[in-house]
Amino acid sequence: MAETLAALRSLMASYSPTLDALVVPSEDYHQSEYVSARDKRREFVSGFTGSAGLALITKNEARLWTDGRYFLQATQQLSDQWKLMRIGEDPSVDAWMSDNLPREAAIGVDPWCVSVDTAQRWERAFAKRQQKLVQTSTNLVDEVWKNRPPSEINPVVVHPLEFSGRTVAVKLKDLRERLANEKARGIIITALDEVAWLYNIRGSDVSYCPVVHAFAIVTLNSAFLYVDKRKVSSKVSSSMQENGIEVREYGAVSSDVALLASNQLGQDTGVNSDGNGVCESETCEAEENYNDLVWVDPASCSYALFSKLDANKVLLQQSPLALAKALKMQEIYGASGYFLEGEGTSKRRPETMKLTEVTVSDKLEGFRASKEHFRGLSFSTISSVGPNAAIIHYSPEAETCAELDPDSIYLFDSGAQYLDGTTDITRTVHFGKPSAHEKACYTAVLKGHIALGNARFPNGTNGHALDILARIPLWRYGLDYRHGTGHGIGSYLNVHEGPHLISFRPQARNVPLQVSMTVTDEPGYYEDGSFGIRLENVLVIKEGDTKFNFGDKGYLSFEHITWAPYQIKLIDLSLLTPKEIEWMNTYHSKCCEILAPYMEKDEMDWLKKATEPVSA
Amino acid sequence: MAETLAALRSLMASYSPTLDALVVPSEDYHQSEYVSARDKRREFVSGFTGSAGLALITKNEARLWTDGRYFLQATQQLSDQWKLMRIGEDPSVDAWMSDNLPREAAIGVDPWCVSVDTAQRWERAFAKRQQKLVQTSTNLVDEVWKNRPPSEINPVVVHPLEFSGRTVAVKLKDLRERLANEKARGIIITALDEVAWLYNIRGSDVSYCPVVHAFAIVTLNSAFLYVDKRKVSSKVSSSMQENGIEVREYGAVSSDVALLASNQLGQDTGVNSDGNGVCESETCEAEENYNDLVWVDPASCSYALFSKLDANKVLLQQSPLALAKALKMQEIYGASGYFLEGEGTSKRRPETMKLTEVTVSDKLEGFRASKEHFRGLSFSTISSVGPNAAIIHYSPEAETCAELDPDSIYLFDSGAQYLDGTTDITRTVHFGKPSAHEKACYTAVLKGHIALGNARFPNGTNGHALDILARIPLWRYGLDYRHGTGHGIGSYLNVHEGPHLISFRPQARNVPLQVSMTVTDEPGYYEDGSFGIRLENVLVIKEGDTKFNFGDKGYLSFEHITWAPYQIKLIDLSLLTPKEIEWMNTYHSKCCEILAPYMEKDEMDWLKKATEPVSA
Repeated sequence: MAETLAALRSLMASYSPTLDALVVPSEDYHQSEYVSARDKRREFVSGFTGSAGLALITKNEARLWTDGRYFLQATQQLSDQWKLMRIGEDPSVDAWMSDNLPREAAIGVDPWCVSVDTAQRWERAFAKRQQKLVQTSTNLVDEVWKNRPPSEINPVVVHPLEFSGRTVAVKLKDLRERLANEKARGIIITALDEVAWLYNIRGSDVSYCPVVHAFAIVTLNSAFLYVDKRKVSSKVSSSMQENGIEVREYGAVSSDVALLASNQLGQDTGVNSDGNGVCESETCEAEENYNDLVWVDPASCSYALFSKLDANKVLLQQSPLALAKALKMQEIYGASGYFLEGEGTSKRRPETMKLTEVTVSDKLEGFRASKEHFRGLSFSTISSVGPNAAIIHYSPEAETCAELDPDSIYLFDSGAQYLDGTTDITRTVHFGKPSAHEKACYTAVLKGHIALGNARFPNGTNGHALDILARIPLWRYGLDYRHGTGHGIGSYLNVHEGPHLISFRPQARNVPLQVSMTVTDEPGYYEDGSFGIRLENVLVIKEGDTKFNFGDKGYLSFEHITWAPYQIKLIDLSLLTPKEIEWMNTYHSKCCEILAPYMEKDEMDWLKKATEPVSA
Repeated sequence: MAETLAALRSLMASYSPTLDALVVPSEDYHQSEYVSARDKRREFVSGFTGSAGLALITKNEARLWTDGRYFLQATQQLSDQWKLMRIGEDPSVDAWMSDNLPREAAIGVDPWCVSVDTAQRWERAFAKRQQKLVQTSTNLVDEVWKNRPPSEINPVVVHPLEFSGRTVAVKLKDLRERLANEKARGIIITALDEVAWLYNIRGSDVSYCPVVHAFAIVTLNSAFLYVDKRKVSSKVSSSMQENGIEVREYGAVSSDVALLASNQLGQDTGVNSDGNGVCESETCEAEENYNDLVWVDPASCSYALFSKLDANKVLLQQSPLALAKALKMQEIYGASGYFLEGEGTSKRRPETMKLTEVTVSDKLEGFRASKEHFRGLSFSTISSVGPNAAIIHYSPEAETCAELDPDSIYLFDSGAQYLDGTTDITRTVHFGKPSAHEKACYTAVLKGHIALGNARFPNGTNGHALDILARIPLWRYGLDYRHGTGHGIGSYLNVHEGPHLISFRPQARNVPLQVSMTVTDEPGYYEDGSFGIRLENVLVIKEGDTKFNFGDKGYLSFEHITWAPYQIKLIDLSLLTPKEIEWMNTYHSKCCEILAPYMEKDEMDWLKKATEPVSA
């Protein structure tokens, strides 16, 4: 690690101009939340393995910014050459750089690994003291990374209409209407899940996320996919062709973006002949002249690609695909795909099997794998005993993991990819006698989980406004959790999906919640060195069915689509209101009803017992 | 009104450049929420009398933007030459201008009546279609306003230390430390209440707001007050001098801001000799060269003053006085000053007196006026019967107002200015038999009012996050209200005071709530043409006294400092939880205890009855 820092500092010194600091973000060329092993540059330089964070290396210092989910983990993983910067408590990275780097400092970053939004925010902060952002011509980390994993050639597959729900032709037509409305001649699609969603393709370039490393450009009358062509079979290739999509090499996106900027992209390709575009041939030229903007999403488009455009002709606005993708067709989501069978069996400890965080987690994966349409986990299962459960994104390893312990809380957060959907659930259980404190904390988390799920709210409300409902019962005791309360969830796509969120941080682009979006409800509480609690269900947003409709806005509510009992033993029933107990009894009775067809006899006995009605 | 529009359009046509549109904001030269009669330009041109709104006049159209508090009132007041634009439902004023005014349109505004923030936001919106903002050299409305009220010469008075709590010297010292920390050589103070607070002066230039039309400039070693000198007595003048403050004519602020920009302000005034500055003489020059920024608050500084500065040397940031002023000294706030005696007596209908919205309101003012330190109302009392109560900011007039009606709800929202504080309270009562629907609505409003007041929350939480707590009980039925839930409140200053707010709109500058801030808790529900309900108390923020302290942030809670009973008759007790009933009984018992010393015997009998404990 020390060697890496020294090598980077030497490159910084010899770079022209000399760099006073180098930023190493977590993101890949697509600003992905989860990246491939080859793209884990920030992890390589810092040793910190969490999914979110930013490393800053100056001549004499190395600092790592990360958020509350990772404070504990980062403290454990960072060497003493690194200083942890806690987001929300310490100065933000832009404020810190602006105030602490020298006047007129040159601050380097690979412009492919930083979004337009972020780069512009830094540049604004830098102006105060005449500092400047230097777009390095190569990635300096890659130059010093000797054993960097090679590129993998994973096949692209077509995601069938049965699961995707909408044809590429329909999606392209909708998209082109949006382009025309915004007077845009084209859009550059940079987010991996948006490319996969638009073209109905999937891949395996990023663990747990069935996406392909690819860009797309769609104009009013042409469409392109930029991908390593070795990944594209002739079957996929003809499917693309049928939809008027031309497949080009991944690296060609740079020059094509420049052509798009000067309105020369696709002029001679003839791909318009299939009539997929909204423009008929006689009007196309006029439309194109009028539609002179290029649409890029400032949160997922890299500064490198943006820099090839004419800044006056860019429409910097959230991609229309973000919302289109978030609106799930309800016929796809239903009762199936959200079961968890691990809990019942985990108590029947087979004599021959040692129950550790890893073996239990593997057993759960085995149950999932036996289901139809299973395609792998949707993230690395968090299976954690006692103090490990306080590490919010803990990932056990076979050699070092803990054994299940009847005196400790056990938390598992798990989900899978199925062709017909992506799942995510967390339950917290205790196999012995929980302490009064553990019960009080579990009950406060449960009250928040119930309060959020029971909310009704008018159209236009965003997740930031709702977040507090899950925290108020914890705040009453001076407790809290350092993570958001809910995230969108893909359909055989990323387990974390925008554009909506339920978070305590106001998000500049947090869109209102809308009917048929999916979102998780997952408050928690974590006591360092002791235990952790989290409860998570997936909710679908539906009409609120309220008595009145003030302001004619329409009111919304949530429907739970995750079915697994809460452990009664961990609840202090005296702290629940009559309405909360009523809600839980109803939920448990539906669990029993919905899960019954999938249960063996002894499992059903367990489930009936676990879901018996309770009273205060 | 038609004549006014025609006269303005003729001025717009002859202006160079010809104006395609003229914006008439509600604000005065200080971006005040409440303005003097002479500054009510937007009201003059549109006829709409609400406190918030913006008028836009184009060649063929006139549109008025206002917020949900005023939709009903504006509909009633606007002539058919005007179109109402509903904020939150219709396009925002910048989006509308950008999309609907011609390409390259010239849009005029008096740059004194628009903030830097707003003007820059418009300019960004205008860029898309090459429109431009024209700063008019005179105010075109003033040119056509024949009977414009004259300037008033109201005396400036010194606000004694007994009530202000802190000397001007201490406030200036703190301010100069902030300037030095931010590398600013000076600050231009533009908000009227900030000038009054900093210099411990008060006046009566704006109805209900005890402020003076004045600017202030404070540098590291000088301080200025810009005010019509006819308002300044020799006593005030010498008080200013003692504090090293030079009094200059109001109009001199323009040229002095230009001098400040070039670092020539106060160079030869010798006001530094009293040593109030943080700089000692030997270091001052060096400090001044290093501190080369001029601080202005982009929300209260006019575009006119900003335009005299060097944009690269401006620190555009919320004024440090906004927060300093919001942190009340708790020894000033206490049990006194928040009583409302009107309610008890309002039921003893004297035979000789007709009870109308105005007579009842006058009676209440009479009670207030009899109290020590009374200095006038803090806003025009809202005294409203039945359908009038649905007009959120209704103001009754003697000739046209309604009589109290035993079959209708009566809502009153009232407050006063006292030397030792500013008050604001709302209660809603019914003198006959309320309907089940009225009771259900009142109870939902009360539940929200209680839920907000009972919240505990960590330091760092802002009012936007808390707002939903007051709405959730209403949303359950599909009900809502079109106004914020709480505002800060001054100390013998404006009844609406920043920088904090409890609002459903995320505020770019909504600061976290902090110990010793005051804030109102005032949810409501309004049914057009039928009735209105609002309950409002003032709360003080205090330490949360929680069992734990997760994250070492410190937790906060609210303390009610307004004491007046809620009308039990309007409550459907079956909808309250046991905890809510317990809270109300405790609050009522404290009402009785705190108000007892101020009550006559028959009043006390009434109060005891009004505050008797209830059960579900």
